[in-house]
Amino acid sequence: MVNLENRVKKISKKLQEQNIDVVVLFDSSNIRYFTDLRMNDAAESIVVITNESEITYIVPILDYNRAIKTCWIKNIIPFPEDNPNYLMPLRQIFKNKKINKIGIEKDVITYYKLNFLKEIFDAEITPIDDILIDLRAVKTDEEIKLIRKAANIVDKAMQESLKSLREGIKEVEISAYAKYIMEKEGAEGPSFQPFVMSGENAWLPQRFSSDKKLKRGELVLFDVGAIYKGYCSDLTRTFSLGNLNDKQKEIFDVAYLAQREAIKAVKPGMKASDIDKIARDIITEKGYGKYFPHITGHGLGISIHEKPIIDVKVNDKLEPNMVITIEPGIYLKGVGAARVEDMVLVTKEGYEVLTNTERELIL
Amino acid sequence: MVNLENRVKKISKKLQEQNIDVVVLFDSSNIRYFTDLRMNDAAESIVVITNESEITYIVPILDYNRAIKTCWIKNIIPFPEDNPNYLMPLRQIFKNKKINKIGIEKDVITYYKLNFLKEIFDAEITPIDDILIDLRAVKTDEEIKLIRKAANIVDKAMQESLKSLREGIKEVEISAYAKYIMEKEGAEGPSFQPFVMSGENAWLPQRFSSDKKLKRGELVLFDVGAIYKGYCSDLTRTFSLGNLNDKQKEIFDVAYLAQREAIKAVKPGMKASDIDKIARDIITEKGYGKYFPHITGHGLGISIHEKPIIDVKVNDKLEPNMVITIEPGIYLKGVGAARVEDMVLVTKEGYEVLTNTERELIL
Repeated sequence: MVNLENRVKKISKKLQEQNIDVVVLFDSSNIRYFTDLRMNDAAESIVVITNESEITYIVPILDYNRAIKTCWIKNIIPFPEDNPNYLMPLRQIFKNKKINKIGIEKDVITYYKLNFLKEIFDAEITPIDDILIDLRAVKTDEEIKLIRKAANIVDKAMQESLKSLREGIKEVEISAYAKYIMEKEGAEGPSFQPFVMSGENAWLPQRFSSDKKLKRGELVLFDVGAIYKGYCSDLTRTFSLGNLNDKQKEIFDVAYLAQREAIKAVKPGMKASDIDKIARDIITEKGYGKYFPHITGHGLGISIHEKPIIDVKVNDKLEPNMVITIEPGIYLKGVGAARVEDMVLVTKEGYEVLTNTERELIL
Repeated sequence: MVNLENRVKKISKKLQEQNIDVVVLFDSSNIRYFTDLRMNDAAESIVVITNESEITYIVPILDYNRAIKTCWIKNIIPFPEDNPNYLMPLRQIFKNKKINKIGIEKDVITYYKLNFLKEIFDAEITPIDDILIDLRAVKTDEEIKLIRKAANIVDKAMQESLKSLREGIKEVEISAYAKYIMEKEGAEGPSFQPFVMSGENAWLPQRFSSDKKLKRGELVLFDVGAIYKGYCSDLTRTFSLGNLNDKQKEIFDVAYLAQREAIKAVKPGMKASDIDKIARDIITEKGYGKYFPHITGHGLGISIHEKPIIDVKVNDKLEPNMVITIEPGIYLKGVGAARVEDMVLVTKEGYEVLTNTERELIL
């Protein structure tokens, strides 16, 4: 079992170090990190943690019975559903406490919520996003087990989807089927909105599946991921139904070579930007540098994008038990798009690739 | 075609009335309302509208080519993907303009974004959420056509799902299959995370589909919706595989009666709270008032929850071309849960029910 009290202790220690009395968390992935309770995506809830390792969980009244029954946290408070006063329980729990400095998530907390906090606390407001990003970057062995299972599920879905390929199948049918397979295999759902992009849709790129039908002579890119017990996977394959020209094959070969070489360099102590540089240099040397408009990869865990981001100018160093993706891509107008993405665990000596679906799918 | 310039003119007029120079929109549903461009759920973009009906659209560089090609807006600016400086284009477009008062979405804009705006504008910040909520509450005929199609898609998915029912099927298989059908039928995806809740899961309520297998003698509740060209549908049915006891049948009968009677009262000029009262009074008279812990219904459109919310103390009046749900429910420990939800269009004289799946599914 994941040790959740330990997570609370760790953040409380950080709060003490920074003289922060309390954090108020609204981000659903941060909340899940501490509660391990699944919620419907649309449900808002709040977690409050003090620098003395006290944790309080404020949940919609519709989720209250279930939270009481299944969540490890002792202090659980309900708020009325769909009610503008759902922040009111915060008043109650801080009624008799002196708060000087309160930590918030600057990339999540809204103007409305912030103003509410300012009204009830006569306290300094300080962002604590980085504390949580750092805490979550290195995974425990228990977390890695869940991520492995999420990787297995997306491998399975990709492989089943590849079996269904034929001329005339719509992009959306492939991704819809993969999502169905993932849930049948135990996923809570997709870790992001998955997409199949073929032909022109790929080099635009469109980033969602459309009604367009697959044809021969096209590069087809499929990016998909699952959530298993809260943890994300992420996988991309590029394939075709045959009849590719040399240019299409070349951009696939270059993107895949860049990915393989970047993965080989993964080990503790490597800078994120150095991993990125390996992929980017290969693509640039082959003349496609300006057609690689995104990051080389990203950490993942409860969120689909976590620390470290594998990109230029990122000085974060890889550490054992980080999990990242490596996914350089080339998007060339009139030709197509190519990207191979795998999940990579940073081990003590180097790396282990967690996703295993066949990569050479170009006919 | 939906007239988007007209929407820009309408909000600009409101801005003029309130002496607001410009609004900066981050909410994806507000952005879609003005752009009509579909984006991947994870893509961040920004819309800026001045009180002189100038609209600027800031998109991730990965979406730039597609936006240029397919969006009606002339001023489209790209920002680098996954870059903390993605707000920088805002500096550029306001470089030579004097801004005294800027409108923001108080329930959406984050602390980080707000601080960025405060740095670049020496201007008063004012919430404009209500302007957009009001603009979007009454639908145009074009919008109603899209909502009808979204309703047809979810009806089809519900009917196909009902055909697949059998003892031993998992909750998650039913909702996963419905999502697959919706996308095959043209949906962009689900309008929220749909859920099947059976037996104990229903009265908790759990609000997501689990691995639990359906059995005879249980009430089963399935809530699902589709997005069609940006517009949402929402539908709930309660069914069983037989062997229900009298108490289970009674809570279904009461919830369904409350729903029918509330729908019959829908017409222009009715207060939202009066519709709610009809449903709530029926349930209360039968002794189940405290087991109905949520709203009676809600408007829907590009968002799954829009104005008007059908609940106690809501004074909003129904107007022609509003689209709402009516969905009172009863959740009784040890017995089960029952809710029938339909989408209802407010017409000039009264109402039209937009969802048509059979409602009496209790065996």
